[in-house]
Amino acid sequence: MSALTLRQRLSAIETGALSASASIAEFAERVDAADGDIRAFVRRAPAETLEAARHAAGPLAGIPLGIKDIYDTADMATEHGSPIYAGHRPRADATLVAIAREKGAFIAGKTATTEFAYLTPAKTRNPRDLAHTPGGSSSGSAAAVASGMVAGAFGSQTAGSIIRPAAFCGVAGYKPSFRLLPTVGMKSFAWSLDTAGLFAPTVSDVALLAALLTGRALDVEPVEARDLRIGIYRSGADDALSPEMAEAVSRAGRLMERAGASLIDVAETETLAAARLAQPLIQSYEGAQSLAHERLIEGARLSESLRQALAEGAALSPERYDEARRAARQGRKAATALFEEVDALIAPSALGAAPASLATTGDPAMNRLWTVTGNPCVNVPGFQDEDGLPLGITLVTRFGRDRAALSIADLLERLQRPD
Amino acid sequence: MSALTLRQRLSAIETGALSASASIAEFAERVDAADGDIRAFVRRAPAETLEAARHAAGPLAGIPLGIKDIYDTADMATEHGSPIYAGHRPRADATLVAIAREKGAFIAGKTATTEFAYLTPAKTRNPRDLAHTPGGSSSGSAAAVASGMVAGAFGSQTAGSIIRPAAFCGVAGYKPSFRLLPTVGMKSFAWSLDTAGLFAPTVSDVALLAALLTGRALDVEPVEARDLRIGIYRSGADDALSPEMAEAVSRAGRLMERAGASLIDVAETETLAAARLAQPLIQSYEGAQSLAHERLIEGARLSESLRQALAEGAALSPERYDEARRAARQGRKAATALFEEVDALIAPSALGAAPASLATTGDPAMNRLWTVTGNPCVNVPGFQDEDGLPLGITLVTRFGRDRAALSIADLLERLQRPD
Repeated sequence: MSALTLRQRLSAIETGALSASASIAEFAERVDAADGDIRAFVRRAPAETLEAARHAAGPLAGIPLGIKDIYDTADMATEHGSPIYAGHRPRADATLVAIAREKGAFIAGKTATTEFAYLTPAKTRNPRDLAHTPGGSSSGSAAAVASGMVAGAFGSQTAGSIIRPAAFCGVAGYKPSFRLLPTVGMKSFAWSLDTAGLFAPTVSDVALLAALLTGRALDVEPVEARDLRIGIYRSGADDALSPEMAEAVSRAGRLMERAGASLIDVAETETLAAARLAQPLIQSYEGAQSLAHERLIEGARLSESLRQALAEGAALSPERYDEARRAARQGRKAATALFEEVDALIAPSALGAAPASLATTGDPAMNRLWTVTGNPCVNVPGFQDEDGLPLGITLVTRFGRDRAALSIADLLERLQRPD
Repeated sequence: MSALTLRQRLSAIETGALSASASIAEFAERVDAADGDIRAFVRRAPAETLEAARHAAGPLAGIPLGIKDIYDTADMATEHGSPIYAGHRPRADATLVAIAREKGAFIAGKTATTEFAYLTPAKTRNPRDLAHTPGGSSSGSAAAVASGMVAGAFGSQTAGSIIRPAAFCGVAGYKPSFRLLPTVGMKSFAWSLDTAGLFAPTVSDVALLAALLTGRALDVEPVEARDLRIGIYRSGADDALSPEMAEAVSRAGRLMERAGASLIDVAETETLAAARLAQPLIQSYEGAQSLAHERLIEGARLSESLRQALAEGAALSPERYDEARRAARQGRKAATALFEEVDALIAPSALGAAPASLATTGDPAMNRLWTVTGNPCVNVPGFQDEDGLPLGITLVTRFGRDRAALSIADLLERLQRPD
C-alpha cells in the first residue's frame, strides 16, 4: 500500500512537496511490481496519455485512477470482459472519464471486469490473499486500489458489484444515490439499476474523490455520534451470513453505540423484501434487452451462464417485469420511510469474507436491495475475520443524503481503526 | 404516400397477397424517387442488409424502418448529425434496432438528425412543403414516414423531438411513458429526459408497431367516447400559439364532445409550470455532462450554438440542477393527479404549423412539460391550417397508460378524418 492517503497525496502535491509526475511514477512502479500476481489491469494507458498526465493541471493532477473496462475510453480499447469486444476502441470517453481527465487525473488503465459486469469471473486475484476472489464485477478496480496500484478507481453496480468487491478487498467503496454519477458511455446491463461508483483506500479518500469529480459537497464532515440514530438492518437473507460477518455487524453497532449513538434493530418489511426479490427479475429482463445485439447475433461468444441468464430474461413477460418494477417503486418509498426512524443503517456488505476461489465472485445477496432502491451505500473497510481477511460493513442513508453516508461511514471507519 | 397502411400491409404479407420482398422494393423505389428533394436519409442500408431483409421472417417482415442517426447500427455508420462522428461505425446495434431486426423488420437506413439531437437543423425538408422545416430533432424520421419512404421510423425526444416533427409533417408520433422503450445504444443528451419513440403514418399504425416491437398490449382498442372525460390543457405558454393552432385544439375538443365525451378545461398549475420551466435546465446540465468528451476535447467541431449551450450547462451549479430535478419530481406527481379528473388531455403539439424556414426546426415549448413528466404522448395527425399544412394535436394520458393514449388518439384521428 502507498504510504499516503489520497487526501495526504493531494495536499503534498498542492504544497509542492510532491510533483504530479513523481506521484504517478510511484504508482506505475507498483503496477510493474505487483500486477503480475494480482491481474487487476487488462490494459495500461498508452505513453502519450501518461506523458500528458505528468504535466496535467487540476484538482486531481498526480492522481492515477483505474477504470473498470465497461467505461468507454478514447485512448484505450474497451472490451467489457468479453471476446466479442476484443480490441474495440470507442470514439469518445465515457462522461466520468472525460471529467476525470478534465480535473487532471491520470487514467492509468482499464481494470478487469467480469463478462459484461455479470458473473463470469475475470482473472483478478484478491491482494489480501491471492487464492481468494476479489469479488465482482468491479474486480480489477477494487484489487488495484487494495494493492496501492492506483489512488482510486471507477466501478459500477447493478446487483452488488461495487460494495461486494470493496468488502472482499478491504477498501472503501461508494455506490452513490442512483444517477448521482452519470453512466453515459458505460456499458449498460440494466438501465434502472446500473449505478456508477468509486473506490479508494479509505472512506475519507473516496468522499474527497467524489467531491472533486462532481463539484458537489460530498467530502466528509464531522458528525457527532451522540446525535445519531443508527439502525442495524436485519434482512430476510441474513440466515446465510457467516458467523464472523454477523459478529462484525454487531461490533460495528457496538462501536457506534459506545461513541454515543443510539442503536435500533430494523427488521426488513414485506415491501422491502419484495423489492429485494424483484432485483434479479429487473436485472434479467433489462439485461436481455440491453445486450440484445450480443444475445441475438453473437450469442456463441457469450459464456454459457450469461447466455442462459439472458435467455431467461428474454423469456420474461412484460407483465412480470412491470410487477417487479412496481415492487421496486414501493421498495423505494419504504426505504425512504425507514430513514424517518434512523439517520443511517448498518448492514453486512457480503455474506462473509471473500470465498477461497477464483471460480466465483461471491454472492450479491446483501447488496441487491440497496441497488434497487437507489440509496447511497458506503463500504466501510477495516473489519477482519480470524484469518485477517477483510469483512465489509455497509453504511446506508436516505436517497440523496450521500454526504451523510460518507461522513458517518468515515466516523465508523475511524472508530474501528486501531490507532 | 403508400396506398396501404402499416396494418393493411402486414395483413397482406401475412395472407401472402404481398411478399416481404415486394413490399421492401416498393419503398426503396419511393426513396429513389423522392429523397433527392426531401433529404430524409443520411445513409441507406448496405446491399447485404437489404438482401437479408428480403428473406426475413417475423411479425415485421416486409416492413422498412427509418432509424434516427443517433441509434447505433452495426451495419451502417452512426454520425449523430455531427462531423465529429463522420464515418463512425458502432460495434453493435442499439437495443431497439436489434429487436426490430429480430422481428424481421428491414432497417432501411439512417435518418437525418439535428446535431446531437439538439437544435442545429439537418438538411431535411418538409414533404408537405419543401420550403418548410420538418421539425427536429427527429427530422428525417418524420419526413421519411410522411413521404411514404418507410412504413415506420424511430426517433427520440429530449424536449420536443418526436411530437413536434410528427406534427409538422402530419404523421403519428408516439412518445411512450419514460423508459418504456429502451434507449440503450442511443446517443445520450440528457439521461433523465431522453425518450425513445416511434413514427408511423397513422395512430393505429404506430400503436401496432409499438405492440409488435415490445410484445406489450399497446395496439389500439375500441373506446367509447361517452365514457371519456377529456381535458383541454391550458399551458402558460399558450399565448404564443398561432390562431390556427388554437382553433385546431378547439376543434379537436368539439369533435370529442360531439362524439359523447365530456370536456373540461384544465389550467396549468404553478407546480406544472415550474416543471415545464425546469426542463431546459435539466437538459442543459445533463447535456454538458453527456457530451463532456465532445465539449472538452472536440469543441471546435461543434456548432457555435451547441457549444454555447453546453458551456452554459457546464456553468450550472449542482444545486441549481438539483432544484430543477425537484421541480420535475413535483411535476410528475402533479401530472399524475391531473388524471384523477380526466382520462386524457388534449394539447397543441407545436405553436402552429411548420415554420417556412430550413434554418430553424421550430419551438418545443408545447412538448417540454410532457417530456419532463414522462407521460405518454401521441401526436394525432390530420388537422390542417388554411394552406393545407399539418397542425398536430397531442393526446396525453397518465404515466403507464400508453394503450389508452394510443386508443383515444386513434379515436380522435378517426373522428376528424374526412371519410
